[in-house]
Amino acid sequence: QFSGVATDMGAGQKRAAVCFACHNANGISKIPGTPHLAGQERAYLEAALHAYKAGTRQNPTMNAMAQPLSEADIRNIAAYYSLLSRTPAR
Amino acid sequence: QFSGVATDMGAGQKRAAVCFACHNANGISKIPGTPHLAGQERAYLEAALHAYKAGTRQNPTMNAMAQPLSEADIRNIAAYYSLLSRTPAR
Repeated sequence: QFSGVATDMGAGQKRAAVCFACHNANGISKIPGTPHLAGQERAYLEAALHAYKAGTRQNPTMNAMAQPLSEADIRNIAAYYSLLSRTPAR
Repeated sequence: QFSGVATDMGAGQKRAAVCFACHNANGISKIPGTPHLAGQERAYLEAALHAYKAGTRQNPTMNAMAQPLSEADIRNIAAYYSLLSRTPAR
């Protein structure tokens, strides 16, 4: 289960702004090799961010991105992207 | 860019059958913590399978799943899931 702790969508969107460059604000990536995050499974997004932060997933960009994230950041970013429509209007 | 080599959707579906238990045949996962794969970005899916096979991503289940996959398997499975609708009918 995702952590279930109350999340702050506004904070999620603000904190996720740094992710928009590759993952896009609507979560449909514009870059081959970069995953779509729109409507992705929330606990998975939290687990992926934890793995990039802990280094059990090695990807230079994502390890650097995840490094400064707090637990609240991880929860809010995961909530933000998981709650987006899987098929946003263009 | 994904490898672009001709892929065999039929082989992809057959080879992906082992993935259905967690990722579901329609790519919408039923298990918290397990990602949706439906309509995911194809080169990303290839990269993720390569990472699980190489161990640069550590996840016991996925490392075991990726271990026996050939290059053709990886291409076909990635093609199969990436071409599924992001919002399959229930």
